[in-house]
Amino acid sequence: MDKRLFDEMIATRRHLHTMPEEGWTEFETTYFIVKRLREIGYETVLAGKDIIDPASVRGRSEELVNAAVERALGNGVPAEFIEACGRYTGAAAILKTGRPGPVTALRFDIDCVCVQETDDPEHAPNKLGFRSGRKGLMHACGHDGHTSVGLAVARDLFEHRDALCGTIKLIFQPAEEGVRGAVAIVGSGILDDVDIILGSHVGGKCKLGHVGLVHGGVLASTKLDIYFEGVPSHAGNAPEKGKSALMAACATAMMMAGIPRHGEGASRVAVGKLIAGEGRNVVPAHAYIQTEVRGETAAVNDFMVKNVEQIVAGNALAYGVQSRIVVAGEATTIIECPEILDIVREIARDVPGVEAIDELSTPAGSEDFTMMLKRVVEHGGRGGMFRWGCNHHGHHKRDFELQDTESMPVGFEVFSRFVRRVNRCEG
Amino acid sequence: MDKRLFDEMIATRRHLHTMPEEGWTEFETTYFIVKRLREIGYETVLAGKDIIDPASVRGRSEELVNAAVERALGNGVPAEFIEACGRYTGAAAILKTGRPGPVTALRFDIDCVCVQETDDPEHAPNKLGFRSGRKGLMHACGHDGHTSVGLAVARDLFEHRDALCGTIKLIFQPAEEGVRGAVAIVGSGILDDVDIILGSHVGGKCKLGHVGLVHGGVLASTKLDIYFEGVPSHAGNAPEKGKSALMAACATAMMMAGIPRHGEGASRVAVGKLIAGEGRNVVPAHAYIQTEVRGETAAVNDFMVKNVEQIVAGNALAYGVQSRIVVAGEATTIIECPEILDIVREIARDVPGVEAIDELSTPAGSEDFTMMLKRVVEHGGRGGMFRWGCNHHGHHKRDFELQDTESMPVGFEVFSRFVRRVNRCEG
Amino acid sequence: MDKRLFDEMIATRRHLHTMPEEGWTEFETTYFIVKRLREIGYETVLAGKDIIDPASVRGRSEELVNAAVERALGNGVPAEFIEACGRYTGAAAILKTGRPGPVTALRFDIDCVCVQETDDPEHAPNKLGFRSGRKGLMHACGHDGHTSVGLAVARDLFEHRDALCGTIKLIFQPAEEGVRGAVAIVGSGILDDVDIILGSHVGGKCKLGHVGLVHGGVLASTKLDIYFEGVPSHAGNAPEKGKSALMAACATAMMMAGIPRHGEGASRVAVGKLIAGEGRNVVPAHAYIQTEVRGETAAVNDFMVKNVEQIVAGNALAYGVQSRIVVAGEATTIIECPEILDIVREIARDVPGVEAIDELSTPAGSEDFTMMLKRVVEHGGRGGMFRWGCNHHGHHKRDFELQDTESMPVGFEVFSRFVRRVNRCEG
Amino acid sequence: MDKRLFDEMIATRRHLHTMPEEGWTEFETTYFIVKRLREIGYETVLAGKDIIDPASVRGRSEELVNAAVERALGNGVPAEFIEACGRYTGAAAILKTGRPGPVTALRFDIDCVCVQETDDPEHAPNKLGFRSGRKGLMHACGHDGHTSVGLAVARDLFEHRDALCGTIKLIFQPAEEGVRGAVAIVGSGILDDVDIILGSHVGGKCKLGHVGLVHGGVLASTKLDIYFEGVPSHAGNAPEKGKSALMAACATAMMMAGIPRHGEGASRVAVGKLIAGEGRNVVPAHAYIQTEVRGETAAVNDFMVKNVEQIVAGNALAYGVQSRIVVAGEATTIIECPEILDIVREIARDVPGVEAIDELSTPAGSEDFTMMLKRVVEHGGRGGMFRWGCNHHGHHKRDFELQDTESMPVGFEVFSRFVRRVNRCEG
Repeated sequence: MDKRLFDEMIATRRHLHTMPEEGWTEFETTYFIVKRLREIGYETVLAGKDIIDPASVRGRSEELVNAAVERALGNGVPAEFIEACGRYTGAAAILKTGRPGPVTALRFDIDCVCVQETDDPEHAPNKLGFRSGRKGLMHACGHDGHTSVGLAVARDLFEHRDALCGTIKLIFQPAEEGVRGAVAIVGSGILDDVDIILGSHVGGKCKLGHVGLVHGGVLASTKLDIYFEGVPSHAGNAPEKGKSALMAACATAMMMAGIPRHGEGASRVAVGKLIAGEGRNVVPAHAYIQTEVRGETAAVNDFMVKNVEQIVAGNALAYGVQSRIVVAGEATTIIECPEILDIVREIARDVPGVEAIDELSTPAGSEDFTMMLKRVVEHGGRGGMFRWGCNHHGHHKRDFELQDTESMPVGFEVFSRFVRRVNRCEG
Repeated sequence: MDKRLFDEMIATRRHLHTMPEEGWTEFETTYFIVKRLREIGYETVLAGKDIIDPASVRGRSEELVNAAVERALGNGVPAEFIEACGRYTGAAAILKTGRPGPVTALRFDIDCVCVQETDDPEHAPNKLGFRSGRKGLMHACGHDGHTSVGLAVARDLFEHRDALCGTIKLIFQPAEEGVRGAVAIVGSGILDDVDIILGSHVGGKCKLGHVGLVHGGVLASTKLDIYFEGVPSHAGNAPEKGKSALMAACATAMMMAGIPRHGEGASRVAVGKLIAGEGRNVVPAHAYIQTEVRGETAAVNDFMVKNVEQIVAGNALAYGVQSRIVVAGEATTIIECPEILDIVREIARDVPGVEAIDELSTPAGSEDFTMMLKRVVEHGGRGGMFRWGCNHHGHHKRDFELQDTESMPVGFEVFSRFVRRVNRCEG
Repeated sequence: MDKRLFDEMIATRRHLHTMPEEGWTEFETTYFIVKRLREIGYETVLAGKDIIDPASVRGRSEELVNAAVERALGNGVPAEFIEACGRYTGAAAILKTGRPGPVTALRFDIDCVCVQETDDPEHAPNKLGFRSGRKGLMHACGHDGHTSVGLAVARDLFEHRDALCGTIKLIFQPAEEGVRGAVAIVGSGILDDVDIILGSHVGGKCKLGHVGLVHGGVLASTKLDIYFEGVPSHAGNAPEKGKSALMAACATAMMMAGIPRHGEGASRVAVGKLIAGEGRNVVPAHAYIQTEVRGETAAVNDFMVKNVEQIVAGNALAYGVQSRIVVAGEATTIIECPEILDIVREIARDVPGVEAIDELSTPAGSEDFTMMLKRVVEHGGRGGMFRWGCNHHGHHKRDFELQDTESMPVGFEVFSRFVRRVNRCEG
Repeated sequence: MDKRLFDEMIATRRHLHTMPEEGWTEFETTYFIVKRLREIGYETVLAGKDIIDPASVRGRSEELVNAAVERALGNGVPAEFIEACGRYTGAAAILKTGRPGPVTALRFDIDCVCVQETDDPEHAPNKLGFRSGRKGLMHACGHDGHTSVGLAVARDLFEHRDALCGTIKLIFQPAEEGVRGAVAIVGSGILDDVDIILGSHVGGKCKLGHVGLVHGGVLASTKLDIYFEGVPSHAGNAPEKGKSALMAACATAMMMAGIPRHGEGASRVAVGKLIAGEGRNVVPAHAYIQTEVRGETAAVNDFMVKNVEQIVAGNALAYGVQSRIVVAGEATTIIECPEILDIVREIARDVPGVEAIDELSTPAGSEDFTMMLKRVVEHGGRGGMFRWGCNHHGHHKRDFELQDTESMPVGFEVFSRFVRRVNRCEG
């Protein structure tokens, strides 16, 4: 790729690495993206509530958002910008060529994870001086790279817009971690006219020099927060007057673990956290469970969710307490569109530095891009997802590293060449 | 007491001891009672459905009834009698003096327990040749004595009817074991005009030579049968298609044990039996729990019942199965009417052979006479319960024995003198 | 195949169909097999304890065995025969050619299932007059066909013994249902010198005209009977003195359902039956759980078994009760020996009536032939399993049918030709 | 009482009210007490480790202690004092008269509770300017009054020491809340030569103008902290590698609720808090339960504790996790010594302002003075406990108030006159 673009892309990534923001708090990142897109020349730049359906927002903490707004304001993000975003994050640029052609969307995710970056002096961000400036937050999943690739693709396509037809939508999604943000973007309607969508993720099982085509192996998953509210009472004097939210939660945890296996595919259920009770001698009035289920197919995942719902309702009834379930994240399985993967395969073979193509279908976590892909396919479109390799030590690890100069150009090239191919101006 | 009456009473008791019948199957016993009452001269003799409200019948097994009907027919009970009884058991005689006075009811219970009588040659029924002729059935709680005392009282009162005023109702109750029969008698309405009711039980903590006045200590109790019906499926191939009644039952058992203690009195919960499942490799479609709860007060017992109901409904919901609860027995606490106990105390002091009066209030099981007493008190009447002593080895034991010649006259005297006192013809 | 052999094979199958015997009670069947093998001319015929290691017997009910012995004696099986068998079932014939060559074993299983045969007049055994003569028992899994094919193969090989080298062991295994019998045969040592072993099963997913080669899909499984023994007490008077076996069993059931999923393959756990308690008002002293676990790999199955063991021990400790686990059946996964399957494939192609070869690897229940195969492979041998097709309505169904005249010759031919190939006398 | 003593007592109480310290952190209070005792003239003044057995300390948080030490140092408590106390709190003064006579101990407890004092301007401490100066901490159980009464008694007895015989031990106990401190004082041996011990508590059901004699009604109780440590793993990728501390805790909570009722007295079990897990998608490695049990008798309480221990051990085994139980508090029932209560009754009748004597025996929480009393009685001594009334709005409430000028003199007089009576110098 062009050296000017390359230099900017790497510098952008390293800058973003210093200022990680977790899901739904990416105000500085969003502002950075919006400024860059406008500087490139995009006329239609959307941010926050323009591309976010509040009713579909998952796993957003008002408390964290408030703190992040304070920080962003302190770091120079204009109050009017945040206001205009409706206190939501994420951005999109739309390039209308004016020529008939497909509507193509690209997805880039922008949030970080809650990990403390290593102090190891050999770790590239330490060595080269761009380590995270925020305690307990780190781009340890490579989304700084995703965002930077997206901005480089944005500039590249804009500069070559005369060779393109149709419409290109560049979507910078918030809150991919915990699979929380994609549904809100789907809910905004921005994908409803999209013909082709392409998403990606760096790394995973895909090593440096490889491009991976995602045929399957993405587990459907639903993240759930469960709340029970009981009635407190003095456990010594009047135990019969209490309704224990703690007991309802414990029974729920035991029953959730016991949801039957499914004959049509692997399932998972994780009761990750349980917090209940106010004091040693008080019948507990509050309990909270943080959980997630997964399924090899959407049907298996739905089976798990439905069982959790029944169990929660049943225990609320059995223990005489109130219950509430909040969906904190959602992802489905990948829908395979072979014609799109065929295009990516062809393109990838020609990208400099690509030595092998991996056909990926073994289970590898969950990804909420699947929700976007599903919407596009439901409306008659097609899409796909690829990986571009890097030799990391493990995602979400304190020493995760991108090898940016080697890995990011591959991501850039696949995205850029894909759009130039499917939106090529035939004239 | 009169020697003629005494001899008949003892002979009756020993005869009944040879032919024990468990709750709701007392066809031969009922027929025996009815014949005797008619022979004495009672004009109004009621049996079976005349004093039994079918809707209030608890814990009656159609299967056991069918077998008992066969046996009774074989032993000479006329088919028309059983038909007239509507296949229900129990009897009553009503003595109307024609003179104004109170309506007084006496309760005598007639069923046996499922215990195999001992082979010990020293055991009185073995020694004297009146052991139970029925395998696994025995009058090991003394109801043969109760019935015989009742019949002796019936003859005594009838013979002295000219000295009585008001009305006397002699009630021979079926199915006291498991506290199943009293509610059906209450439901028939026969107690609705009763002013005074007196019940009794031999033994318990009351030793030979003592009469006990029951001030309290009778636990309220509800016996419940719980049924779950699930959906079977092949547990290996399609576990997700099954709905396990077994799991719902197990969760129910665990939650029932965990019903909170009550600050206002002792409670009990017993999960006595659980039977679930059809085969090793089939998701269980059926489960059955046999349980009972108790409470030091009716309110505590109600709290327990309500919790069981909620738990069963909650687990049905949680596991997606059907549930059903059947009340198999009911008793409440004793309502204390001091004026009645005062009368019994006075009378008892004068009864030959009575050396001491016990004032009883420590917990001593459940008794469904409490349901009759409750109804009488609700309608403005009063009542009470007493014990007449005997030195047994423990109720429901294989070697339980009444010491009939010594203990039964005391029971007879208290009942007889009580009626002669409260229904004395003032003229 | 030879018409004489064919006629005998079909007649044998139909005769066996009339006299089904469940696992470990196959005394009449064993006697029938032994008589036939001797009549054919085999000198070494083993039965019962000669091929059964008592310590490895799984899931054998002394009570059922006693009843079966009575029946067998009544049906003419000599008492000395049963005595000589040590009251165990199963048989084997050994053909020693006297010429150097491999030791080859064939497995035929002989037990029936507990299913009541349909009354449908169109059902072949009804139509042709060979329906099961035993209520609640039926050859609804085709083992009557297996046994008959085995006896036909026995005659065929014996008649052609001059063309064979090495040793042939024909093993008639009891108690395959519930995967109970194979381990006992393994334990006897009869397989320890075997170089090649071949087993089969009719039907499954294999349709008439097909032969299936079993590459995988057989789940490892362990059947477990769990017993808890507690301490009884009066649940109303002294609940603290009891130790509830019922509660320990219920907690065990709930925890077993909650054994974690395994990341390396499918698992199953079925709590099929739970029977606990003696009476409504007695703290339950006895509880019994009938269960099974399965795993896509032996390691996954072992993980499940180990968890069950821990859960049972833990609940015994928590509830202060005694526990006991009895292994009631065992099977492992298939070990694939491609060279053996290659031979079967080649042979099968030439068998008259075979239109297609199925390569089977999708999950299809458990089979304890796997335990025999495992032992042979552990000792350096090889082996395999095939299916011969039939168009049944489902195994263990009341109308299961073999279509014997069409399906059985295929089974016969594959076995017979296999031995003639691997034990061909080269001279 | 003497006006000088009265003024000092009230001023002391109001000063202590401004500086509440919770259990095991009472460094400033202890220093205050020690200084006062020395100023009065006591030669033997013990503090911290001199009267505390570290091995018997219950429910002490090193973290809270560290923070309290910092605060105390900041507020002028000398570092050497804290060091000399071994970082433990509590104090005692010993008055040896040199004349033969009984060893008499008085108990005064000094810690506060974690309650935020009300802002109501009518609340006496607000109105009169002595409200708690510490957020979330308040003397809302009256121990400021206990301590001040103790110091007034100390001065009074010292000033009248010539009229006394024997030895008097004035014990200022830390950490009574949560029944944590008494066992450590018992462990120090300071009570081993005590002949007579007297303790007290203000308020409860005892109204202003009443003195209450505690005959019974104090429940034995054990406070337990339960810890489970499991093995974390990725709940999606390798659930089988994790050992869930959360599940062990949930099963423990359910089983604890289900500990059988006790036939010989009321019991309680409260699972007040449960905190488990690290993240949504990680098998939880840590779990914590805060619980307490109670019993109407020490035997019933022991039954509960033993069951909890078995349940915890059983679930650790079942789930393959480590467990640890820490006793966080202990109290037993009151041992009644009628001769001591008789003395208090006699004295109290003569105390100005006392209008009635309450004979208390209904259940009223737990109190660790019972552990001291038990030790004294075990060594052949006797003792008792009384209440002096006040009209509060409820202990541990934000507006609890002592009505110090009216209620405290009663407490003072009973203690002072009691010692002057039992340790009267007969000469």
